[in-house]
Amino acid sequence: MEFISYHENLLKYLLYISKEDLEIAISHIHPEDILDALRLYEGDKKDILSKLPKDILVDVVDQAEDEEKYELLSIVSEARQKHIIDEMSSDELTDLLGSLSNEEANKIIYKMNIDDAKEIRELLSYEEDTAGGIMATEFIAIKEDMSIANTLKYLQKEAPNAETAYYLYVLNHNSKLRGVVSLRDLVINDFNVEIKDIMNENVISIPWDMDQEEVGNIFEKYGLLTMPVIDNSNRMLGIITADDIFEIIREEDTEDIYRLAGLDEDEKIERNIRESVKNRLPWLFVNLFTAILASITVSFFEGTIQRIVALATFMPIVAGMGGNAGTQTLTLIVRSIALGELTIDNTKKVLLKELGIGIFNGIAIGLSIGILSFLWEKNIIFGVVIGVAMILNMLIAAISGFGIPIILKKLNIDPALASAVFVTTMTDVLGFFFFLGLATLLIDFL
Amino acid sequence: MEFISYHENLLKYLLYISKEDLEIAISHIHPEDILDALRLYEGDKKDILSKLPKDILVDVVDQAEDEEKYELLSIVSEARQKHIIDEMSSDELTDLLGSLSNEEANKIIYKMNIDDAKEIRELLSYEEDTAGGIMATEFIAIKEDMSIANTLKYLQKEAPNAETAYYLYVLNHNSKLRGVVSLRDLVINDFNVEIKDIMNENVISIPWDMDQEEVGNIFEKYGLLTMPVIDNSNRMLGIITADDIFEIIREEDTEDIYRLAGLDEDEKIERNIRESVKNRLPWLFVNLFTAILASITVSFFEGTIQRIVALATFMPIVAGMGGNAGTQTLTLIVRSIALGELTIDNTKKVLLKELGIGIFNGIAIGLSIGILSFLWEKNIIFGVVIGVAMILNMLIAAISGFGIPIILKKLNIDPALASAVFVTTMTDVLGFFFFLGLATLLIDFL
Repeated sequence: MEFISYHENLLKYLLYISKEDLEIAISHIHPEDILDALRLYEGDKKDILSKLPKDILVDVVDQAEDEEKYELLSIVSEARQKHIIDEMSSDELTDLLGSLSNEEANKIIYKMNIDDAKEIRELLSYEEDTAGGIMATEFIAIKEDMSIANTLKYLQKEAPNAETAYYLYVLNHNSKLRGVVSLRDLVINDFNVEIKDIMNENVISIPWDMDQEEVGNIFEKYGLLTMPVIDNSNRMLGIITADDIFEIIREEDTEDIYRLAGLDEDEKIERNIRESVKNRLPWLFVNLFTAILASITVSFFEGTIQRIVALATFMPIVAGMGGNAGTQTLTLIVRSIALGELTIDNTKKVLLKELGIGIFNGIAIGLSIGILSFLWEKNIIFGVVIGVAMILNMLIAAISGFGIPIILKKLNIDPALASAVFVTTMTDVLGFFFFLGLATLLIDFL
Repeated sequence: MEFISYHENLLKYLLYISKEDLEIAISHIHPEDILDALRLYEGDKKDILSKLPKDILVDVVDQAEDEEKYELLSIVSEARQKHIIDEMSSDELTDLLGSLSNEEANKIIYKMNIDDAKEIRELLSYEEDTAGGIMATEFIAIKEDMSIANTLKYLQKEAPNAETAYYLYVLNHNSKLRGVVSLRDLVINDFNVEIKDIMNENVISIPWDMDQEEVGNIFEKYGLLTMPVIDNSNRMLGIITADDIFEIIREEDTEDIYRLAGLDEDEKIERNIRESVKNRLPWLFVNLFTAILASITVSFFEGTIQRIVALATFMPIVAGMGGNAGTQTLTLIVRSIALGELTIDNTKKVLLKELGIGIFNGIAIGLSIGILSFLWEKNIIFGVVIGVAMILNMLIAAISGFGIPIILKKLNIDPALASAVFVTTMTDVLGFFFFLGLATLLIDFL
């Protein structure tokens, strides 16, 4: 909330400053802030865009969201359009084209020179959520027999076009990745030294088809700023930079948070009602179906409830508490799968631990509610029935909260997507079944 | 799960290779992988640690988790301990010391030289979750009248000790931040040019007391790799690097995911049962309390349920569906607050949108369950009662799912921590109240 007034002021400034004055002042404004100011502007964005120097415009479009990129592109002149497309980084351009219809995308590709167009078509052929789909192709490649002095000369020419110049990749004549040199290595060594003497051959690289979630985990694990992407024969295809990873981590985490709550991953507060309803309602209907399953379970015991109506009062507690405990376990498991923390090695240990927690928590909550309901209803068997049902349901919660995400993962279904509904169906249906079933068995003592 | 066999092999290799051979091979192994192999080893870790060259040992400890750092430190020789402490980066050392008792921390501080100790004490004075608490002090500071050639010479001496050498910060004589130069700027310009002619004065900097969650948002927004931290008079205190940000984003996201599910933020699959029970059980008791509130609501209507026992069957549906819809809204709002997307500007718009969705979804679900229960119970008023109760409860879900996180945020309580329990209490209690209350009013027609 802190930036609002700054961006409002910036917007006024952008609107009323002359084109000449803006050219001088613009280097003090970050493109991302210009973008934020543009987002606030409800008038014709052309008023501002036409004033921006063209290289700033490239940066602004480069940093925009995919749909925004297209919107901005479509309101600038043909000449500026071409300039932006030529200068945009390949990963951003790929994201933009990937979000368009084939027809719209081709319109843009036709404006590119042949080499760039070929490269972009290749980038578009990778799956969007894999290393190939997020990499950029503008990296700096050098040979191992170059001296540092020569490398620096080469850099003066090449660095302005590269996505990052901090790491230089040493490739052999087949484009196979042999090593990496950082700019820091270059400047701290004698300029006569050859690259092969300072290069680090121990390069951690990313296969082109790795899922972006795993790419994010590897960046986090090794704390790297840039990583090379290679094909199956160790040929270097591109690089992935840290700034893309921030977005990927956020995107993947948001996806998990939303899916756990029954929202689809593209949910946004800015969405319109129609889209949101279209996306949330199906999930509510799935839940309605499971709620009806639970109701059917209850309906089998209407006779019992008719005789002991207090059962209806306590009914939601057993099912609800099972749902809460199950959600705790399943959330832990879903998150640990996403972060790569749950491994073949520790699965059994974690299962035993969750079962243990289920038993302990079950006894603690079961005893409490048992005693409480005994005091309330003045019937010890009533207390025993609800207490035992609670313990059983907490065990079900632990087992299903642990097992369902793992089964879904094995079936290649995102555990975040469907675990919650399965687990609460289990705890609802079985919670009612245990409680009302036990009450039916012991009805003569209630 | 993919890395397991690699790390097991690595472990065997580390155990059985001679110290001399290891010294040659070690440059091909990433410290993070050594750490993973160590984690698998159940024997005395000394066997491996004593073989590692001391600079590799520094990197391994540097990348370990806080508690692990201490464990590793405490099993190496005094001399190696001192070397590690001298060479570790200040931000990692601060994290380590912050996780120890005062006594343990002082034992380590006494081993440091006076200047380092002073610096570390200062770093320890910042709140752990703020910019000051996560920054490192090893940055490269230069003056604006230096030439590039002189700067490069200076770098050759200083870069090896710096956290990052990619950005050089231009400070005036009062340590105030005047600009920034990237290593890339240095190498692509003529070596006679002075720093002031190439420095970028438009530096985005982070105030020392900014919360780490917001720091993460700023890194993501601007796509930066390093940012300077300043005090209230624009004096530069340290830097934050992208690798720390990966961890912070993950940590903050995990915290939100866990808190939404009633787990505390330190929950780990590797935790022991006792700790997990100690942390999950209080949350379950809070939920038990709210479940009892819902039960008390039901108990007021026992007379009604006694006469129409079918109400007990349908009871959980109204409350449960309200809970599901409320969770959708609250999760969206909690996440949007965390990502800084919910601003003063759009709050009202979002509220209206969520209300609209609540009405639409309420009518859709209300109609469905109304018709279904009419078909089941063969009573149109029964259908009307449950349908209307459902619509009302879906509205409550939208209002509380929207309002409760915002109120908690205003009260400076993390919305992820307590929203879920408040929202489901509302939808449970009011869901039962609407459904059973309406049924009581219309009991003569049921």
